Amino acid sequence: MSTVPVLSDDALQPQVKAVFDDIRATRRTDRINNFWRALAAADAQLLQSTWTEVKQVMGEPGALDPLVRELIYVAVSVANGCSYCVHSHTAAARARGMSEAQYAELLAIVGLAAKTNHLATALQVPVDAAFDAQAR
Amino acid sequence: MSTVPVLSDDALQPQVKAVFDDIRATRRTDRINNFWRALAAADAQLLQSTWTEVKQVMGEPGALDPLVRELIYVAVSVANGCSYCVHSHTAAARARGMSEAQYAELLAIVGLAAKTNHLATALQVPVDAAFDAQAR
Amino acid sequence: MSTVPVLSDDALQPQVKAVFDDIRATRRTDRINNFWRALAAADAQLLQSTWTEVKQVMGEPGALDPLVRELIYVAVSVANGCSYCVHSHTAAARARGMSEAQYAELLAIVGLAAKTNHLATALQVPVDAAFDAQAR
Amino acid sequence: MSTVPVLSDDALQPQVKAVFDDIRATRRTDRINNFWRALAAADAQLLQSTWTEVKQVMGEPGALDPLVRELIYVAVSVANGCSYCVHSHTAAARARGMSEAQYAELLAIVGLAAKTNHLATALQVPVDAAFDAQAR
Amino acid sequence: MSTVPVLSDDALQPQVKAVFDDIRATRRTDRINNFWRALAAADAQLLQSTWTEVKQVMGEPGALDPLVRELIYVAVSVANGCSYCVHSHTAAARARGMSEAQYAELLAIVGLAAKTNHLATALQVPVDAAFDAQAR
Amino acid sequence: MSTVPVLSDDALQPQVKAVFDDIRATRRTDRINNFWRALAAADAQLLQSTWTEVKQVMGEPGALDPLVRELIYVAVSVANGCSYCVHSHTAAARARGMSEAQYAELLAIVGLAAKTNHLATALQVPVDAAFDAQAR
Repeated sequence: MSTVPVLSDDALQPQVKAVFDDIRATRRTDRINNFWRALAAADAQLLQSTWTEVKQVMGEPGALDPLVRELIYVAVSVANGCSYCVHSHTAAARARGMSEAQYAELLAIVGLAAKTNHLATALQVPVDAAFDAQAR
Repeated sequence: MSTVPVLSDDALQPQVKAVFDDIRATRRTDRINNFWRALAAADAQLLQSTWTEVKQVMGEPGALDPLVRELIYVAVSVANGCSYCVHSHTAAARARGMSEAQYAELLAIVGLAAKTNHLATALQVPVDAAFDAQAR
Repeated sequence: MSTVPVLSDDALQPQVKAVFDDIRATRRTDRINNFWRALAAADAQLLQSTWTEVKQVMGEPGALDPLVRELIYVAVSVANGCSYCVHSHTAAARARGMSEAQYAELLAIVGLAAKTNHLATALQVPVDAAFDAQAR
Repeated sequence: MSTVPVLSDDALQPQVKAVFDDIRATRRTDRINNFWRALAAADAQLLQSTWTEVKQVMGEPGALDPLVRELIYVAVSVANGCSYCVHSHTAAARARGMSEAQYAELLAIVGLAAKTNHLATALQVPVDAAFDAQAR
Repeated sequence: MSTVPVLSDDALQPQVKAVFDDIRATRRTDRINNFWRALAAADAQLLQSTWTEVKQVMGEPGALDPLVRELIYVAVSVANGCSYCVHSHTAAARARGMSEAQYAELLAIVGLAAKTNHLATALQVPVDAAFDAQAR
Repeated sequence: MSTVPVLSDDALQPQVKAVFDDIRATRRTDRINNFWRALAAADAQLLQSTWTEVKQVMGEPGALDPLVRELIYVAVSVANGCSYCVHSHTAAARARGMSEAQYAELLAIVGLAAKTNHLATALQVPVDAAFDAQAR
């Protein structure tokens, strides 16, 4: 159940169709995830700007490996409690070659970080002066 | 201001001293972060088990590069809103060689993930059947 | 699946029945949402105090338009990751006249705010002195 | 203390200077908030794309009043626990005319939404069929 | 730095003064925390209703021990990342007799829960049928 | 739908089987929750270390009553928005004797804490000097 209809491929308006075509060409698959179909139902402009940003941040060559980018994306999605995003980006990480050993380490890091995040917040630990970027 | 004193090196109980010695030996630095000093004040046992876990998950050879592990740690800490952890793990990532270009990409991914996390939650997008691990 | 039964209209205790009657009269509908039915199963007193607060904060005349109040409610519910609340308050916003264009803008703002929230937290930006309320 | 230096106006690179000039012209003030100064230090490209998005989403004419947009922004920032963002967008809402009565109502709604968000999550209330957008 | 002034005891309006008097009498201390002083500056009505709720939920005799209530309050405040609340309710728990051993266990539970929360969310574990309250 | 298969009892590897046997013996039930079955599918080592920690923190004699520990666990799970954990630990609290009156109070405290957490964050209330642990 979603707050907007999840659009099928019938009768798409041109701006949405153009984005869907670009997703298919970029990802070399015919499948369009429900996220894009729901976003298209909500607002074609938001669909286009979000896809453009995803394509650029996650797809263009850069300083981080594409798999590493997906691991970071999964980590944020878990911490934000976004069920859909956890599923879609775990699948994306696997599609980019995440091994089961890497997945196990990702889980261990996310779990440990959550634990120490809560401990540091509980203790209200003052930030060490050595971490000051201005002083570097 | 913290909820417990941040212990100095004076008059540490033996279990705490042993952990601090191990942190210094493992990290090849004389400095002990406030997190460990506050945790030591709260509970020596929790200090020891937490350090053991950090040392194992973040330090032992594995399937993920040590820098990648720190990037994931920073990402979780940001999403959990832990100020201390953001500072300490951003510093740790830099100590492990994070370039400014890598940091810029980390920020862009974390920001984008937060945006799409909120959009997917707002739209309550149903999870695609294709993401079902049981069906793989 | 819920942690308590979702009460039907049979055999309600008097305090619960009085609240349900007031919800029906106030909202001019015969339907009682599952939230109130579950809360009623958990505790009649908590049901009554929560409904009283909702009725007063969301329903009484005030400085903010009823639709604006619902938009704010949706925004908080998304950020808190409450699936039920996102559904119920998106529906409430529509019932109060939210247009699809307004919904699209709400989504864009919530997504952007999440992005800059995470960026500001990642960078640990110091608060500008100009924002000091004491100095106004 | 931030993870990057907060740039002063000295010796800015051209891309950053152009964004700062546009912020000043758009907002009709000489002051540039620390958020933009820190983001500039992290990455000029991320600064530019973020400012472009903020300017478009928050500044262009649309279906929601500029003040209403800021109220939504504050609400998300509170729920995400972003201290900097709460300060800067509360100030922005006041600059756009938020009265003290409106602020009091905003606080009451945010507090109430947080309470019912937690209650609905605690009870794991099943979503009512009436909220199904597909069925509208 | 706060978004509203933190009121001193001078020239309080009668509704605020009455609440402050009741806080002093109820808690048997002359000190009024900054939370109440800031809330008073924002809205006298919100101050009064919030204090009434705190007094009733945290102070009246009930099924849970007053110390246990404060431990739960601290736990929620940590998970929500509310720095002020962590400080004030950790102090309140100590004032109600929390021993250092109890505090150490609270920290261990909060840290462990955060870890397993993130693991369960990362794995998207389906809820066991045995947890269904309707079937009890 | 989960990101890994939920393992049945067939053909478990020895390390997993040993943990499952210990869970059954410790909890005196034949049932193994889906959380452990999914974690086992992800990583036997993470399963073992997580179970060891749960058994120690939640099961060994200590300064807090076992039921109180579960109430704290539920509170953290609600605030972190972990649906699975809310279900499993609410059931665990009931198994340890949580009465309906205690559950109602837990809900009231969690809801109230969420409300004041958001109010304190919205107001950015400065921490009172009296809460300083160093000064105790």
